Amino acid sequence: MKRLIACTAALVALAASLPVAAQFQKPEDAIKYRQAAFTVMANHFGRIGAMVQGKAPWDAKAAADAMHVVEAVHKLPFTAFVDGSDKGGNTKALPEVWSKQAGFKQAADKMVAEMAKLDAAVKTGSLDNVKGAFGGVGGSCKGCHDDYRAK
Amino acid sequence: MKRLIACTAALVALAASLPVAAQFQKPEDAIKYRQAAFTVMANHFGRIGAMVQGKAPWDAKAAADAMHVVEAVHKLPFTAFVDGSDKGGNTKALPEVWSKQAGFKQAADKMVAEMAKLDAAVKTGSLDNVKGAFGGVGGSCKGCHDDYRAK
Repeated sequence: MKRLIACTAALVALAASLPVAAQFQKPEDAIKYRQAAFTVMANHFGRIGAMVQGKAPWDAKAAADAMHVVEAVHKLPFTAFVDGSDKGGNTKALPEVWSKQAGFKQAADKMVAEMAKLDAAVKTGSLDNVKGAFGGVGGSCKGCHDDYRAK
Repeated sequence: MKRLIACTAALVALAASLPVAAQFQKPEDAIKYRQAAFTVMANHFGRIGAMVQGKAPWDAKAAADAMHVVEAVHKLPFTAFVDGSDKGGNTKALPEVWSKQAGFKQAADKMVAEMAKLDAAVKTGSLDNVKGAFGGVGGSCKGCHDDYRAK
């Protein structure tokens, strides 16, 4: 039991020893975290996209599974564009993320709103509904990438 | 609309142009994906850990939010230790992941089982329950790291 407690302590220290409000000790941590969340989101969003594009057969269960992951992670990156994380690590975030914060927030909110529509569409189990909502998310991704992310 | 469809197509291609069963085109993609899922999981598991250790005040809602993310991503890494992804990228996975697959699967299953207990504990809203379940997850992480991950 002692060993287990020590292990747990070590693991927690490894993962994050700070309260949520000060989650990132170094800029690199914030960059790694937001990139990780985007990577997971893009992968699972892409699984739905493959069905929308006819590159994978429509599978309502698989789409729901993918959407479950997307839903859980899609807001996370935007908690990690913290002050000072414009440099350090391998970030492609443009200075505009910090110099035009209202615009960046608007772009993030747009994606979140479009994602809610996609979530609702996936829950209907209808590919046609998913096709109808998918482009809105894609457009919101692109809009933000165009303005706030280096090519 | 045409522009939107083209954008969506580009984004989907960017994210994943293959069906789920062949999700990863290159070993690097699988490595990046599993590391991303682990990064997100560790961060949110760590938020619960900070409460367990008294480094952050107990907040049942924050714990539930963190657990929601952990639940959604904790099985994902194990879909990405695909053949050929023992090299390429910056992986710390040991050869034993592939040479002792039954043992690795058992270790993964152990983590998933312990995580289900933690999920149930978080849902009770009781810090004591969470404390009771947390160590089991931590032990399962450590067990797998000891045997299947380079120091």
